[in-house]
Amino acid sequence: MKIQLITIGNELLNGKIQDKNAFWLARFCYEHHIDFIKNHIIPDNRESFFTALEEAWSNSDLVITSGGLGPTKDDLTKDLLSEFFGCPLVESEQAMRVTLTNYKKSKREYNPNQNYSKVPNGFTALDNEIGYAPGLLFEKDSKMIAALPGVPSEFKTMFKDEVLKRANGSFKNSGKLKKHVIVKTYKAPEAMIFNKIAPKLWEELESFGEVSSLPHPMGVDIGVKIEARDEASLKTKEQGVKDCVNSSAIQNYIWHIGNESLEEVIIKKAKEKSLTLGFAESCTGGLCASRITDISGSSSVFLGSIIAYHNSVKKNVLNVNSSTLEKFGAVSSETAWEMAQGARNVLGADLVVTTTGIAGPGGATPDKPVGTVGIGYSSERKCAGDIHHFSDRDRVDMKFVFSQLALFTMLEQIEKF
Amino acid sequence: MKIQLITIGNELLNGKIQDKNAFWLARFCYEHHIDFIKNHIIPDNRESFFTALEEAWSNSDLVITSGGLGPTKDDLTKDLLSEFFGCPLVESEQAMRVTLTNYKKSKREYNPNQNYSKVPNGFTALDNEIGYAPGLLFEKDSKMIAALPGVPSEFKTMFKDEVLKRANGSFKNSGKLKKHVIVKTYKAPEAMIFNKIAPKLWEELESFGEVSSLPHPMGVDIGVKIEARDEASLKTKEQGVKDCVNSSAIQNYIWHIGNESLEEVIIKKAKEKSLTLGFAESCTGGLCASRITDISGSSSVFLGSIIAYHNSVKKNVLNVNSSTLEKFGAVSSETAWEMAQGARNVLGADLVVTTTGIAGPGGATPDKPVGTVGIGYSSERKCAGDIHHFSDRDRVDMKFVFSQLALFTMLEQIEKF
Repeated sequence: MKIQLITIGNELLNGKIQDKNAFWLARFCYEHHIDFIKNHIIPDNRESFFTALEEAWSNSDLVITSGGLGPTKDDLTKDLLSEFFGCPLVESEQAMRVTLTNYKKSKREYNPNQNYSKVPNGFTALDNEIGYAPGLLFEKDSKMIAALPGVPSEFKTMFKDEVLKRANGSFKNSGKLKKHVIVKTYKAPEAMIFNKIAPKLWEELESFGEVSSLPHPMGVDIGVKIEARDEASLKTKEQGVKDCVNSSAIQNYIWHIGNESLEEVIIKKAKEKSLTLGFAESCTGGLCASRITDISGSSSVFLGSIIAYHNSVKKNVLNVNSSTLEKFGAVSSETAWEMAQGARNVLGADLVVTTTGIAGPGGATPDKPVGTVGIGYSSERKCAGDIHHFSDRDRVDMKFVFSQLALFTMLEQIEKF
Repeated sequence: MKIQLITIGNELLNGKIQDKNAFWLARFCYEHHIDFIKNHIIPDNRESFFTALEEAWSNSDLVITSGGLGPTKDDLTKDLLSEFFGCPLVESEQAMRVTLTNYKKSKREYNPNQNYSKVPNGFTALDNEIGYAPGLLFEKDSKMIAALPGVPSEFKTMFKDEVLKRANGSFKNSGKLKKHVIVKTYKAPEAMIFNKIAPKLWEELESFGEVSSLPHPMGVDIGVKIEARDEASLKTKEQGVKDCVNSSAIQNYIWHIGNESLEEVIIKKAKEKSLTLGFAESCTGGLCASRITDISGSSSVFLGSIIAYHNSVKKNVLNVNSSTLEKFGAVSSETAWEMAQGARNVLGADLVVTTTGIAGPGGATPDKPVGTVGIGYSSERKCAGDIHHFSDRDRVDMKFVFSQLALFTMLEQIEKF
């Protein structure tokens, strides 16, 4: 089953918003072994829509469109589907029912000008649990197209509850079991991993399945797609991949084998060791804490963070000495160290990691360029601080890589408990 | 000048990462009046690449590809461009120079197996200030194609420094000045704005230029594209749009007219009034602070935030009363209120806004479902707390909408100073 997604909206191509539906759908398809083969992002116009739809309809089994179902004049999806498939717009009781139910639920009065009640002849109106606009579904020549609203919560719910349910019969696959084994490494760039540290690794892994490599700011994820007829053979293959990397020279660079994120691994390992965690953040401004709290269940290990952006907060809340700030500066291993000591006292956590750096574009000094960051940690075992350097990133990317380093530091320290 | 972007990588279609280059390019093109007309997101394979490239090369003046230039076996861009344009791969001194310079800069040893030195015959190797792989550029039939690395920092720098410089002559536009006037509203959904509050607004705005509408979780951005021959006429048109919305019934829903984000407007207005800001965050877990510190210059107004995820931090750092937590619960207007009082004392800020809620999927109680959030604020003027409800979002979206409400609360309170 091959899927293509057509994401519609001028706002996606002028930088006003970043689409989230494609990313969600990609992950969903990956987890459900559905083949997501292309995403077209196009503006609200007829020509772009037809070009994308022609390609998608010819080359896939299920086409999803996202956006353009709302009540305003730039919402063209319904009219264009009607034209493309030669199905004139007709009144639909089912569409009317969806819209009225949702108006009633939100206690708002329905305005008939909104034209929600018409659908292209032969199309099914899909229920929308959240918004007003019904989705649309059409089947022809053993293919299916579903038009969904662009609002992420509506898109997700309707895809899972309405589209998948209807496409369910077709979504059976070859009968083979599939798994994506992901080997996550850090501390070495892609070229070094594959050319210097383990030059034969790629070919060795190819004996298990299709290999891919995804470089990150601080390392590489190596993916191997394995297939087998039954669970036992799949397990054997997975173990084969693990043995292969664990006996290669990259073993010291591996921080995880599996699909979990860095945040998830931190929370899981802290839970296993019954540790409580916290941060004190200056340059990352809350990003470390926000990333950890994106994960459901983080509350069982994460206590909190002190965002000490201004030096007054470093001094008054974290008890960093004025003399340390004066002598070494806010961006220094010494300040990172004292922030960690202070935050562990204030938060009462078993392990605290801290960040203090220069995310740019301003704030650099001759000896501390943009990209300089102090990382500290404190636990019953040990308290330390260190200085690191990154370059050539904008402010938001710099914040992310600083937070990445802080989270890796946290993981390393958890493993030492 | 019309641009299409082809973003290449299996990892983009299986949910492992979300591409950032298209969003950056979209914003850049918008600001520079370049017409970004389509983004193709495709996997690493020959057929998908050729389908996308055929369409992009026929329908645009400049085609950009992102990704597939690295040293691993799934990096196919160079080979496929060579095949598509019928230009065999040849050794390039310039490509070799780019790669060797960057290896020297990073003090790593070059491995000739990496094949960086070949380019399709007739292509120019582009300098890469950051990574090892040279970019590629080719001109034919008054069109241009540039192949850039997928790593965001490399993509951005090479697009601005190498591609735009070379395409500069072609990037002149019609001679007309253009501007996108954006009217940002909140507190009313799209359908209510255009059907009930101001049913004639869309048509009135169309007399100034093309109108678009972008709904957000808490409101709508209305965009009007204006054009004029000179600065004075452009200003007159812009004023026309402002007068139009300010005299319509939506005037009470407008929080900003302009391209700035909510975070930027908060920082700007706080600066104007010399106010210092802070947060105390429970459910948003640092997201409010992280959003504010994404903005360069935030350090002039933002002092910090107390992330009080666990009740112990609410009590010990923010001085929330145990009896308040017991009687009303952590998710209550009372706790939000006390968090704000406490945080203002601890941070020493003029204005503090707080969040305490249930982002889900766990943590709900019969009277406090997922999506319940307490928002508090405290300033010299006033201290208050309030309860709000959202629904049908996953945890990360819920955190975002909670932070959005906190930032709107902050903006409203800044305006009262």
